[in-house]
Amino acid sequence: MTPNKPRLAHAIGCPAGVAPELSARILADREITEAAQIIVIGDARVLRRGAEITGVDLDVVTVADGAPLPLTDKPILIDLGHLDPASIPVGALSKPAGDFAMTNFRKALAFASSNVVDAVTFSPFNKASMRLSHAAYDDEVVFMNEFLDFKGTASEFNILPGLWNARVTSHVPISGVAALIKRDTILRSLKLTNDAMKAAGFAPPRIAVAGLNPHAGDGGNFGREEIDEIRPAVEAGLAAGIVCDGPFPSDTVFVRCQKGEFDAVLTMYHDQGQIAMKLIGFEQGVTVLGGYPFAVATAAHGSAYDIAGKGIAKVTAMRNAMLIAARMGAARREKRLSDKAAIG
Amino acid sequence: MTPNKPRLAHAIGCPAGVAPELSARILADREITEAAQIIVIGDARVLRRGAEITGVDLDVVTVADGAPLPLTDKPILIDLGHLDPASIPVGALSKPAGDFAMTNFRKALAFASSNVVDAVTFSPFNKASMRLSHAAYDDEVVFMNEFLDFKGTASEFNILPGLWNARVTSHVPISGVAALIKRDTILRSLKLTNDAMKAAGFAPPRIAVAGLNPHAGDGGNFGREEIDEIRPAVEAGLAAGIVCDGPFPSDTVFVRCQKGEFDAVLTMYHDQGQIAMKLIGFEQGVTVLGGYPFAVATAAHGSAYDIAGKGIAKVTAMRNAMLIAARMGAARREKRLSDKAAIG
Repeated sequence: MTPNKPRLAHAIGCPAGVAPELSARILADREITEAAQIIVIGDARVLRRGAEITGVDLDVVTVADGAPLPLTDKPILIDLGHLDPASIPVGALSKPAGDFAMTNFRKALAFASSNVVDAVTFSPFNKASMRLSHAAYDDEVVFMNEFLDFKGTASEFNILPGLWNARVTSHVPISGVAALIKRDTILRSLKLTNDAMKAAGFAPPRIAVAGLNPHAGDGGNFGREEIDEIRPAVEAGLAAGIVCDGPFPSDTVFVRCQKGEFDAVLTMYHDQGQIAMKLIGFEQGVTVLGGYPFAVATAAHGSAYDIAGKGIAKVTAMRNAMLIAARMGAARREKRLSDKAAIG
Repeated sequence: MTPNKPRLAHAIGCPAGVAPELSARILADREITEAAQIIVIGDARVLRRGAEITGVDLDVVTVADGAPLPLTDKPILIDLGHLDPASIPVGALSKPAGDFAMTNFRKALAFASSNVVDAVTFSPFNKASMRLSHAAYDDEVVFMNEFLDFKGTASEFNILPGLWNARVTSHVPISGVAALIKRDTILRSLKLTNDAMKAAGFAPPRIAVAGLNPHAGDGGNFGREEIDEIRPAVEAGLAAGIVCDGPFPSDTVFVRCQKGEFDAVLTMYHDQGQIAMKLIGFEQGVTVLGGYPFAVATAAHGSAYDIAGKGIAKVTAMRNAMLIAARMGAARREKRLSDKAAIG
């Protein structure tokens, strides 16, 4: 282990999808291995298969599970020896595939909880496959809250180059959204977004806050949440030193972002941001889970069973996820070391 | 007047904006003047000014208000002689500018109501300016409902090349949307969309219906409107011969349209469609008001005071509006003549 770089635990995702290929490619990427010390969690045979498919040369130090981590600048593979890739079908659901990804993810989270690493990344999971292993697997946030016994507020960020999207409500029926649009909830999301983006290198981010209603309520004609809740939250954010503005009509705020006016949009509900991000190109984007003591980053796309094993999966989104995790991990590491110095 | 072409009443819009330029340019456009007989309503001096700014040659037959319409294939200008363009400021609100646009619009609607023309178009209005003339001017739909004493269901369509968007609810707060998502309302919108698009030349259109909730409700987990109301409306539409499908998650349906899977999306609320259409490029798009006995079409953009008088306004959207109105006018004309033949 080297003392200065941020350390990332990288869980290899679904072995039946493109995850082994993407994990191999990022390990062969100098920009990434220079930005962070990567501790890969998986099986050496699965990773080797990924390298064969993509034709990359791997230079990793392999250790057995439980062995002390060696002092090296190279990526370290913790070989759990728990899956022979020849034993599962490619591009199809199976319980062993789910078991593999679940085990890797749990171990990566445990490493981060105990400060062995500064952030977590994973190559794409397949949720249906993971449910074959752990029936209660709803999504990463639900699982992490349970696994980490986390009681705080976590949030999913959707990230495109130069554009972050966070949301105040997520998997909520439209009929229930308006009741959740409250000043304090919005302010909490605003602070989470600001903190996560500062950790990712924005100094500081410029955050646009979307309105809830058509034309952002049109001065109260089509709803009062903008006046009663959203604007007060923006004002409280400004008072707390956050560079934010709004509420803005949600049908033009993303067009303004594309022109470079803002670095992020805080949206009020799921589809308000998702419609825009997917049209702009979210499939090339990154998902970051923020609000936890450490950041978790992955590609926004899925396990891509349809192209698994072909070596044609694009690595762009996974690369971006690694680089964002490296920056956020470095920020956490620095804060942790300075806190320790202050105490010591 | 020629008997075979559709006839369009074209109201010159706000004389302080780019409307005179756009009206002049479409009158000098052979594809448009061959597709329809255009009856322009305005002032000869305003139209001449538009032609001077844009450097186009006009070949129109000018008649006074109330004179019989001459037998000609050329565009006809009904010169109301009601505004000297030198008497109003360019690029600024004024009551005379609002009076001019209101008068032209009323006359165009009256022509269509009395079957002198088959459809109406207008170059961009400025609503604030029109309110100086007619304080109750909310938007075109509200005004037309009142002016025409129309009791039916009218709908605004937003149109990009190859992609129409209609919505079930419009200027409604998000808190009130879900209560309006009812099978019969959706079915009515579906029929309106199908009729309008068939009149515009789709034979027949392929209409995607958006869900209301995140992930289109995820099988009832995030709301039941998809199951209880939207899917039954889609099935009723299919039974009525409409080529439709859904409900689809609204964050991917527009991406699917861009790949050519559908010609239209029926959305459940204002921003669901507007976020997507504005990102795709709605400012170059067309607005059609449907559901009335005749179609009304215009450019989706506004009066563009900032570039008025410079001759740099793009005519694309207004051209598209004229060509769509010509097709919809031709369909209405054909139906009217065949109805008459059946009666006669």
